[in-house]
Amino acid sequence: MNDKPVIVSTTKMKSAIKEHLNESFPEAVFVWSKSIEEARGHLHEADILLTYGEDLTEEDIDAAPRLQWIMVISAGMDKMPFKAIEQKGIKVTNVKGIHGKPMAEYTIFAILQHARQGKHYYKQEQQKIWSRRAVPVEVEGRNVTILGAGSIGTETAKAVKRFDMHTTGVNTKGETASFFDEMFNASQLKEAVASADYVVNVLPLTEETENVIDKYIFEAMKEEAVFINIGRGATVQEQDLIDALKKGAIHHAVLDVFNQEPLGESHPFWEMENVTVTPHISGISSGYVPRAMDIFEKNLKAFLRHPESMINTVDVKKGY
Amino acid sequence: MNDKPVIVSTTKMKSAIKEHLNESFPEAVFVWSKSIEEARGHLHEADILLTYGEDLTEEDIDAAPRLQWIMVISAGMDKMPFKAIEQKGIKVTNVKGIHGKPMAEYTIFAILQHARQGKHYYKQEQQKIWSRRAVPVEVEGRNVTILGAGSIGTETAKAVKRFDMHTTGVNTKGETASFFDEMFNASQLKEAVASADYVVNVLPLTEETENVIDKYIFEAMKEEAVFINIGRGATVQEQDLIDALKKGAIHHAVLDVFNQEPLGESHPFWEMENVTVTPHISGISSGYVPRAMDIFEKNLKAFLRHPESMINTVDVKKGY
Repeated sequence: MNDKPVIVSTTKMKSAIKEHLNESFPEAVFVWSKSIEEARGHLHEADILLTYGEDLTEEDIDAAPRLQWIMVISAGMDKMPFKAIEQKGIKVTNVKGIHGKPMAEYTIFAILQHARQGKHYYKQEQQKIWSRRAVPVEVEGRNVTILGAGSIGTETAKAVKRFDMHTTGVNTKGETASFFDEMFNASQLKEAVASADYVVNVLPLTEETENVIDKYIFEAMKEEAVFINIGRGATVQEQDLIDALKKGAIHHAVLDVFNQEPLGESHPFWEMENVTVTPHISGISSGYVPRAMDIFEKNLKAFLRHPESMINTVDVKKGY
Repeated sequence: MNDKPVIVSTTKMKSAIKEHLNESFPEAVFVWSKSIEEARGHLHEADILLTYGEDLTEEDIDAAPRLQWIMVISAGMDKMPFKAIEQKGIKVTNVKGIHGKPMAEYTIFAILQHARQGKHYYKQEQQKIWSRRAVPVEVEGRNVTILGAGSIGTETAKAVKRFDMHTTGVNTKGETASFFDEMFNASQLKEAVASADYVVNVLPLTEETENVIDKYIFEAMKEEAVFINIGRGATVQEQDLIDALKKGAIHHAVLDVFNQEPLGESHPFWEMENVTVTPHISGISSGYVPRAMDIFEKNLKAFLRHPESMINTVDVKKGY
């Protein structure tokens, strides 16, 4: 029997990453599976699992008696069998925090695209029209309200502040937070959005936030306001958003997340002039996997020498 | 005869601006004309002219014997009758410097549009396609080379540095400049662009810079490089740029200025997949007129009390 710890990966990895890890950790054994189905033959010897987090079942946990640690290369943990994991005392770490930068860049892009009339000029280009009538506005000095002031919200506020915009934030208790000029608590959403030129939603999905962005919130916004949703689709009452856009209660919506994904072909958002649709890409970037593997490497080093210093630990009782 | 100084405007102004100036300067008399033709009836009494700078002739200067100061609400002075102005000892001020902010925001928008695959996802939206295959890249850590490190180049470098990108600049002698990590001189264009992910051209048009960006410069760039031109169209050898884009010597061009403007309907740039065309709008913004009038107000206050402290003075001998 092998006394080196065995790491079973349940997801496809690029050869370069596999080679790098094989070389960097001669004191461990890697089993590179392409799927959980393929990995199941190796669960009995797995000390560590490397997964995107949506493939594991309770049976898999039972089939892995040596399992001590699950490294989840994503932030969403909705499908993890936490009960079984807790019973066996297995440690879970994830990559929370690494979506902040791409989501902040997505937000700045969305704001500039609106301010600089990006879609208008792109349409003109498609039609070979040279006209300078649509005047871009500058973003400096504009008000941005960010619903949710956690790690993504803070990274977004930081990027927004670089353009000398004014930042208003919302968190549960209205506590002050870095890069926010002003804070409101969870019961003050209407006050928080009232003066915003751009409202950016990064609220997590909980019982309290489901459908919380409804017609009352849209009516509290300025008519010139742009609503940007990069959080969770289910925090928004979609029919209320459609109504608000149709009657001009708000000016535009840039939507990356939806009640149902993929967005159905017949959904009105696709054709509405004042809606921009992107297919849940705000958190995606070429930097994602390298940054995730960086966290895995740090944690693997810690696991082998000082397990108490592992980072991004998940509270398996709470599930986040 | 009126002993208050008379200010004749040769361009349309919004009522709000006119009212504000009338109220702010009771010690002066404003004559609000809508065009130089209308203004010509008032030139004989004008102490000050307010103009966009492209309408004045030598005859107009001769017809304005009291004229002491021309405020030009633009930066381009190509058509000013400087000889007559110099002979009469008339002061000229303009609004140089106020294009920096919108041009910097345009540049960041152009970079993010490329990095976040903006046009690709917009095309998908038009076709109701939900696909996440095009992976956005992050801009942090990318190399940006800015050709021309004057006031616009510096403002652009400042905005670029906010995203933790690396900035390389070019000016005549390769002297260090704020917000640039590295500098090259005018004879080192090829070296300056060699490692750039984004090359931003803001070179002014002079005898030395005409057609200076030619096939040798494009060949010195990386194949992944994006060329952004917000300077002057005539600094670029357009056929060389077309060839470079067609054979893949560079990846993409975002062009706001051209050899001939408006860009003719049959110009290949309109239809090239790896070219983005905008109609010379990088310097335009809603902040333009307020900022220009701000300079005018400062200078009018100075003119009435301490003429020596007027700002944005133009050297009428050199014409800039």
